[in-house]
This record gives sequence, C-alpha cells and structure tokens, in this order.
Amino acid sequence: MINIAVLGYGTIGSGVIEVLKTNCESIAKRAGDQIDVKYVLDLREFPGDPIMEKLVHDVNTILEDPEVKIICEVMGGVEPAFTFVKSALLKGKSVVTSNKELVAKHGAELINMAKEHNLNFLFEASVGGGIPIIRPLNQSLTADEIVEITGILNGTTNYILSKMCDEGLGFEAALAEAQKLGYAERNPAADVEGHDACRKIAILSSLAFGMQVDYEDIYTEGITKITDIDILYSKALGAKIKLFATSIRDNDRVYAMVAPAMIKSNHPLFSVNDVFNGIFVRGNVIGDVMFYGSGAGKLPTASAVVADIVDAAKHFGKNIWTIWSSKKLELTDVNQVKHRFFLRVKGSAQDVKDQVAKLFGEVEEVKAEGIQGEYAFISESISEQDVKEKINKLADVLSLIRVRF
Amino acid sequence: MINIAVLGYGTIGSGVIEVLKTNCESIAKRAGDQIDVKYVLDLREFPGDPIMEKLVHDVNTILEDPEVKIICEVMGGVEPAFTFVKSALLKGKSVVTSNKELVAKHGAELINMAKEHNLNFLFEASVGGGIPIIRPLNQSLTADEIVEITGILNGTTNYILSKMCDEGLGFEAALAEAQKLGYAERNPAADVEGHDACRKIAILSSLAFGMQVDYEDIYTEGITKITDIDILYSKALGAKIKLFATSIRDNDRVYAMVAPAMIKSNHPLFSVNDVFNGIFVRGNVIGDVMFYGSGAGKLPTASAVVADIVDAAKHFGKNIWTIWSSKKLELTDVNQVKHRFFLRVKGSAQDVKDQVAKLFGEVEEVKAEGIQGEYAFISESISEQDVKEKINKLADVLSLIRVRF
Repeated sequence: MINIAVLGYGTIGSGVIEVLKTNCESIAKRAGDQIDVKYVLDLREFPGDPIMEKLVHDVNTILEDPEVKIICEVMGGVEPAFTFVKSALLKGKSVVTSNKELVAKHGAELINMAKEHNLNFLFEASVGGGIPIIRPLNQSLTADEIVEITGILNGTTNYILSKMCDEGLGFEAALAEAQKLGYAERNPAADVEGHDACRKIAILSSLAFGMQVDYEDIYTEGITKITDIDILYSKALGAKIKLFATSIRDNDRVYAMVAPAMIKSNHPLFSVNDVFNGIFVRGNVIGDVMFYGSGAGKLPTASAVVADIVDAAKHFGKNIWTIWSSKKLELTDVNQVKHRFFLRVKGSAQDVKDQVAKLFGEVEEVKAEGIQGEYAFISESISEQDVKEKINKLADVLSLIRVRF
Repeated sequence: MINIAVLGYGTIGSGVIEVLKTNCESIAKRAGDQIDVKYVLDLREFPGDPIMEKLVHDVNTILEDPEVKIICEVMGGVEPAFTFVKSALLKGKSVVTSNKELVAKHGAELINMAKEHNLNFLFEASVGGGIPIIRPLNQSLTADEIVEITGILNGTTNYILSKMCDEGLGFEAALAEAQKLGYAERNPAADVEGHDACRKIAILSSLAFGMQVDYEDIYTEGITKITDIDILYSKALGAKIKLFATSIRDNDRVYAMVAPAMIKSNHPLFSVNDVFNGIFVRGNVIGDVMFYGSGAGKLPTASAVVADIVDAAKHFGKNIWTIWSSKKLELTDVNQVKHRFFLRVKGSAQDVKDQVAKLFGEVEEVKAEGIQGEYAFISESISEQDVKEKINKLADVLSLIRVRF
C-alpha cells in the first residue's frame, strides 16, 4: 500500500479522490501497489462527506507522518503551497501538483530540491489539464531542439472566442455565457487578460529550453479587445482568432508572447474549439507535432495528477530527470519580433487607404459584409516596434491582431 | 561515453546517425553522457560514406562487444531482427526499435525478457513515426481505463485519400502520385490494403489493454475500393473518408478493425491530412485526447528512435515498466459490431429506394451532383452481420463505408 495525502479538497482535489476510486484496480496495477489516500488537507469542514474521516486542518500531521510517501498539492496559488511543498520534499516525500502559479514561479527550485533528495516533483496537470505535454516534452522529444511551442492553453478564452465565432456574439455576451456554464470565474481577469496562459507558456518554455523563463517577462495581451467586427473580418478571410501563447527560438534568441492571433485552416490548432486546449510543438528533427484534449475540468485534470502519482510511485528512490535550470533565459525584446498584422482604421476607406499606403507600403485590403466607415488590411511582415510607430501616425486604430498566415 | 550500435543503414538508420550528429550536444545533456555510434550493421557496402569506418557485416561483432550498451534495431521485418534483438537482450544490452512487424508479433515476449534482465525494450517509433504515443500510453494515461483508440496510422493511405478529396483524383491516379513522390512503395499492398495500420493498432491495443492483441485477429480492409464517386458523396455530406484503425472497449468486450470511415469536421481526426498521422484516445476519466504529427519520414521517425536511446541511457539498470502481458486478448467477433453504413446501390433511384426501405427501414438518402443510375444512403446503426445479410439481398452494391457520425 502506498499512502498519499491530498492538499486541498476543491474541484481538482475531489477529482483526484474520485479517479483513484473509479480506476482503483488498473491504477494499482500500473503503480505496482494500491494507492491509499491517508489524509486530505483543507481548512474547511465537509459535513456528511466520507472524506471527513481523512480530513486534517494541520499540514504538520501529514508532513510528520513517515507513512505518507507522496503529497498531491492541488490547492493553487503560490503560498502556502510553496512552503508546504518545500517542507514535504525536505521530509523525503515526492510531490505532484496541478498548480501552475507555483510551478511557473518556483519550478526550477523545486525540481532541483527533489533531485538533491532523490525524490520527484511532477507537474503534468499544471499545463493543458489532462493533455500529456510535460512528460512528452521531458521524455519524448529529447532528440530534438525545440524551435517553437504554440498553445491554446486557456479553455475559458477559447470557449469565448469559439462562441463569438460560431454565434456572432460580442465579447461581453460570450463571457456571460461562459460564466453561466461555470467555464469562467466571476472575476475572469486571470483568463481573459491572458495571465493564465502566460504562466503556462512560461512553464513549457522553461522545459523546452532548459532554463528559467520568467512569466513576468512575457508580453501578454488578452482577448478583451476582440470584437464581433474583428470576428466578421476573420470569417471573411476564412480565418479564426485564437488566443495564442507562443515561444519561438531563432538561433540563440527566444521570444515569448501571449496574444490573439489570426490563423487559417492549415494551422494544426485551427480545429481546437470550445473549452479544448491544443499545444503545437515544432522540433528541428521531428517537425510538427500537436497535442489536443481537455485543458481543464475536474476529471481530465485529476487524471493527469493521478498519472503523476503513479509515476512517483514507480520511481521511489529514483529521480526522473527534468532539465530546467534556475539560470534565467533572457527573452528577446518583443518589439523586435516581426509579424504580419491585421489592422482596422476608422475613417472613409478612400481617405485612410492613401495614408496606410504611405506608411505600410503594399497591404492586403480586407472587406467584411456590411461594415462601413473603416478600412481594414493586413500588413507585410514588420516588427512590433515598427507597427507601433506607424499606428501612432494614424488617427484612430480600431484593432490590431497578429496574423499567422 | 555511451556506445551504441545501429542495426540497418537504410532510411531510418541513416536518419538516426544524422539526428545524433545534428543535436549531439542537447542529446548528451538529456542522456547524461555523449552517445557514440560504435558499429553500424548492414550487409551492403557504402563506398565513400564515412559510415564505412563503423560498418560491420557480422552481428556477433556487436553482440560480443561488452562496450555496446544499447542496440538500435531499424532493419524492419520479423527475422533476423527477432533473433538479433533476443540475443542482444541476453547479452545485457537494451534495445530500441522502429520495427512494427517485430513489436506486433513479439512485443510481449521481448518486453518480458527485458524486464527479467533489468534492461529496456523501447519502441516509440514503431507507431506514428515521430508522434509520441507509446510513452504517453504507457506513462501518461496511467490513471485512465482506455475505452477507445482510433488512429490515422498510415501516411501513404492518408496522402492518397487527401489527394482524392482535394483534387478529385481516382484511387489509381492518387496512388501513382504517391509513388512518384516516394510516399508509396512500388508494391503498395502493405499500405493500401491496411496491413501496416493493422500492425500498429495491434501494438496500441496491446498496450492500452495490457494483453496481447494478435494482428491476425483484426478485421482489416484497405482503401483500394474507395472511388472518386465515394469522395463526391462524402463531400456532399461535408464529410471526409479516412482509413481508421480502431480499437474499442465496451465493458469486457474489445473489438478492433481497420477500415475506411466517413467522418465530419467535429471529429478530432478530421484535419489530419496528407502524410500526417493522428491518434485519438478516449479514456474513462481524461475524456478525449489526440496526438498529431509526421507519421513517417526519415527524421521524424529517427527522432523517436533517438528519444528511446536517450531513455534507455537514462535507465541503465532500471526497467521502464510496460504492461503488455503475453496472455491473448480475445477480440469480439466483428460481425456483432454496430455502425451506421454508407451504401451505394446500382439501379434507378426509385426502384432501389423501395427495396432499401424494405430491408433497412428508415435511411438518410445522400445525393451527389451529377451522379445518376444509383441510389446512395446512410443506414441506421446496425451490426456488420446484419448489413452483410441485407446487402446480399440487393442486386449490385457499389460501395459500403462505415460512418462515424
């Protein structure tokens, strides 16, 4: 019997308990032994829930119990999770977590600490919910130098954009629907402003490049400025707008950004709709691969957490090597990055057209049915710096979206 | 330094040498040491190729050299690969292979042999080329009971079907083009008759269900009977025809089959076109996940082989657990499996329609522009046995394709 403790009895924590129960036999077979939840830590009480038998309010009960071999941290947030996880590792317990804030902030340190103590710190569920992406990056794509990772990493924003696209809803209406269905929180900022996707791409980039990518360094733009008119234009182009979290290596330079992008159907992430996530990886020998699945949700995320528990159980006394040094990777200034840009400028098409031609040279004009009083176009590939300077010279820019075709 | 030997200097073998050279530094970092190819086994000579320095014609030179720790078998075919791999394991060398025939036939035995000797037998490249699927099934989806695996596992047939769909080509013309581009062999039977996909789904099913699935037991139908007229109808339906290799668990029954399937855009494999492969997996807790990438090709496949070499190097003295017992899994008789079927029957629509209605009850009529002298429809969900009996009563059935919507 392998004793574990679950820190946090929220959505994911209760999912972990449920998955361990549902697939108890097959999990035991794969872990080599029965997994038993000895404690659940939560400050709350859950009257009537059978979990009460295992509930403790003091983390020290768990940390001081030598029978507990694996800690499953599913509380979220940096503190007190960080303190608890460090203490657990120092007490000789392996840790698995779904906590993206913790991993983005302290991943390198906790990985090293686990390594020093011949333990494991695993975090498959911190990115992409149930989708296997951390382990493939770590253990499958080891023959490659990764040159790009681009993900649709936030289910809430992908749901909102899908709704806007499929039903012609505006941003606010689509957000309201997402909130009604429980896909978006009452305070949706972490999702719609791109912060959630930003932490996740920071984690993936750190793993891909083996060095610390600080999420604070990543240019992050959410989807709040995307309107139903933008969607109309994207449809006219046969394109979709997705919130992309991207990290690209170009020789020794790496840049990373989170921002809406227009893509066409030849992009592998084009069909990733609703609350699903997709992660596209380009390696210098493997070429393009893509991973797709439920990026959030109780059971898919719990599935990834439990898979980490199984892996930790299979690797008692043996550290699973993860290359993520605490040395900081200096990202390239995003202003130097080049894209094509979709732009909408207020004014009569004929007036603006000339001004745009003077500033941007040759552009691709874009028209959408029924839209008047503005001029929309796609620029040639120019730098972020350049586009900023140019749009400063235009009177009223209604929209700026990066174009990936 | 870790000494390895490569058995077979064909496309994949030379790709392995190239990948090890190209990414030499990052691979050494991930493997924990420099990987050095000490020998390459091939019966042929390669005058002028630097490989000549390492070329040997006698496998015993390799087997008897205690410095060689990992054997990379990329010859293909069951024999002599099987004999060589067994001997290598008995001599204490771990083995990685891209050989689907070998793995489908002797996987269980070789996995057990590796386990007994505390070695590893790894075969990521045997299915889906570069796409990580074996390791995710083995190590990531361990919290789940797999209920379905469906793959587009053969790049050649997917290329042919994509060409037929995009350019309206007939089967023979599309095959000829695939042969011209080197995607199809001069004798294309293994691909177009579905045998290649059959071996691959046998491997994936054995891993998913932990027991031996014999490929000889899997109902296998290729794409040679698919015509440009079928494609016209599929387009009229907004559907595509793909060669699906499927294995589904329904309680304690498992059935597996390789056959063309009609799918619509809501299926995650709909956008897997050209020579790409995609593998869809449904778990009882994770829900649906999908893996996508280059299913063949020199470098993508070599990338997967080298990733296995890295994994073997990281696991000297420690067997990576793979659950694939030699106990045979008895598949459900495919005749009992139910689908909807797309059928085309020769004759004037009005005549056939009544006959069809009598036999099949309510059906969905399908029309394609410009096609006359036949009646096409999609049946309700009925068993394979049923559909066979019913079509025996029809004069001239032009086409029968399973429908997955």
